[in-house]
Amino acid sequence: MTKEKILLEHGAGGLLSNELVRNLFLPAFHNPFLQQLTDSAVLELGDKKICFTTDSYVVSPIFFPGGDIGSLAVHGTVNDLAVCGGKPLCMSAGFILEEGFPVGDLAKIIESMAVAARKAGVQIVTGDTKVVPKGAADGMFINTSGIGLVEYPHRIAPGSIAPGDVIIVNGSIGDHGAAIMGSREDLQLDAGIVSDSAPLNGLIAEILESGSRVHCMRDATRGGLGAVLVELAGQSGAELEVRESDIPVKESVRGLCEILGIDPLFLANEGKLALFCPGPDAPEVLEIMRKHELGRDAAVIGKAGAATPGKSGRALLRTVAGGMRVMDLPSGELVPRIC
Amino acid sequence: MTKEKILLEHGAGGLLSNELVRNLFLPAFHNPFLQQLTDSAVLELGDKKICFTTDSYVVSPIFFPGGDIGSLAVHGTVNDLAVCGGKPLCMSAGFILEEGFPVGDLAKIIESMAVAARKAGVQIVTGDTKVVPKGAADGMFINTSGIGLVEYPHRIAPGSIAPGDVIIVNGSIGDHGAAIMGSREDLQLDAGIVSDSAPLNGLIAEILESGSRVHCMRDATRGGLGAVLVELAGQSGAELEVRESDIPVKESVRGLCEILGIDPLFLANEGKLALFCPGPDAPEVLEIMRKHELGRDAAVIGKAGAATPGKSGRALLRTVAGGMRVMDLPSGELVPRIC
Repeated sequence: MTKEKILLEHGAGGLLSNELVRNLFLPAFHNPFLQQLTDSAVLELGDKKICFTTDSYVVSPIFFPGGDIGSLAVHGTVNDLAVCGGKPLCMSAGFILEEGFPVGDLAKIIESMAVAARKAGVQIVTGDTKVVPKGAADGMFINTSGIGLVEYPHRIAPGSIAPGDVIIVNGSIGDHGAAIMGSREDLQLDAGIVSDSAPLNGLIAEILESGSRVHCMRDATRGGLGAVLVELAGQSGAELEVRESDIPVKESVRGLCEILGIDPLFLANEGKLALFCPGPDAPEVLEIMRKHELGRDAAVIGKAGAATPGKSGRALLRTVAGGMRVMDLPSGELVPRIC
Repeated sequence: MTKEKILLEHGAGGLLSNELVRNLFLPAFHNPFLQQLTDSAVLELGDKKICFTTDSYVVSPIFFPGGDIGSLAVHGTVNDLAVCGGKPLCMSAGFILEEGFPVGDLAKIIESMAVAARKAGVQIVTGDTKVVPKGAADGMFINTSGIGLVEYPHRIAPGSIAPGDVIIVNGSIGDHGAAIMGSREDLQLDAGIVSDSAPLNGLIAEILESGSRVHCMRDATRGGLGAVLVELAGQSGAELEVRESDIPVKESVRGLCEILGIDPLFLANEGKLALFCPGPDAPEVLEIMRKHELGRDAAVIGKAGAATPGKSGRALLRTVAGGMRVMDLPSGELVPRIC
């Protein structure tokens, strides 16, 4: 590690996050499950396959347009299971509360989690609450971990991405990041942008049960769609090419991004996934998505090229202006405490 | 909820923790797994039975005599699985770091987790790291969740406690709480007390594999052995009677408790459990414990009486002075951020 102190960027899902995982966590905890670097670890248990994931939520503010830290904590973990082909079975909820936190707000957050869990069809079966003295935490943090049952017979993973695979997103990107930015007190930009926070397991189950072949899925949270594409190119070795003009971005989000000089490609989502499937299966996947309320604006955004042996894959963006840009993991932190 | 703000006591494992769970969490998330109020939720998965648990760790200081927040986070979750009869299979690790946290300390904590996990025979298979701005958290918090495989054929639960059951602890109580108190800067009491933080799964596996019947186990963490007995009396309906003179307490811990005017019965442990078994099985359980490095000072401390239908059970302490005292959940916080 070249940096001696932890920086905000170490938690931003970009370059330094990646460095932290590769230089500290992987060498210390090395095992084949963690090495996969997928959203969930997939494990065999007798004749069953389960997946297991964890995420801590530190979003600020805790209430934002389109959701709150509670619903976000449920959706995030449900989605990490679902993109690995897992049907969410159960979740845990661990709360860290700051002394003085309003009990009424806690009750609202818990109710929001309960509603989100019911909608996603998952039960919160175990939990924990810690309280730290005033000033030792900012309001409330939540960890959710989840277990899913993997029944889809094929391997959904970066290594399954094949040349010719079509890349599909289920709708407009950057909504969550823009909603959080817009709701920050210091910005006071009320652009009417609402987070896309939602559980993707229903949509994903319809796709997997349709018989369509799916090679890889990843939900585009911290670091946005851009970071997901760069990571998947690196992990699969494939050259991924997307067309900027085909990536759905809401006008309001684009406007806010222009004002702030940031790229919606690297803004967080909480209800969007990038899906890789063979070309012949793309029309059916797209049709299923567009019929689903969480995929109405689904779009094909690009395709996977061949992997060059011994070379790391690249994520290429054909820009609106017509040029071709190699995407990198963001090195800075666009929005701290986005999730 | 009568209190409008979260107090430290809501996280102390005593009366207000209990109130929070019963008044907020259980009604919102209600399901039969959570309702069990055990250390782990036990779930059926095909022909397998798994258990699932979560805990967040906010201990201060993060390095203390006998361990650190990393080893503690591994032991705590391993023990929550083990006391439910689960063989720990895998764990998650979620980090919340404060901007500016020394990377060297993070590396030490991660290494300590890796060593603890290897010793306990469990793999850390999935993780997450969030960073919050300076001042929004105090250094580092860790969440660990774990999955265990339950192979013991009988139900290990408060409801299995039967009249005549013998209550055994595997050693001296209060060591962890006393070590944390002694290491707090504001106290500067170096009594040479070392935390008992340790993984109990090996000891518990030996007992369960011996064929001894075990009715219930619980690790005595926040709230100490006292809180565990009060809770188990309430959940089982049984009258639990323990003899103060038979409860092992180290001289150094007793000394510190006397200086500070606190009861070691309500001090946290991280490597101690209360085990309930039928009288005829007690000698074998005790022998197995005493042969194990984590049970050398194991002792029979009391027994379970009959449950009175419709009445909540009580935990009774026969004091050294000869009197009989009904124990209550502690209403205050003995030591904040003990785990």
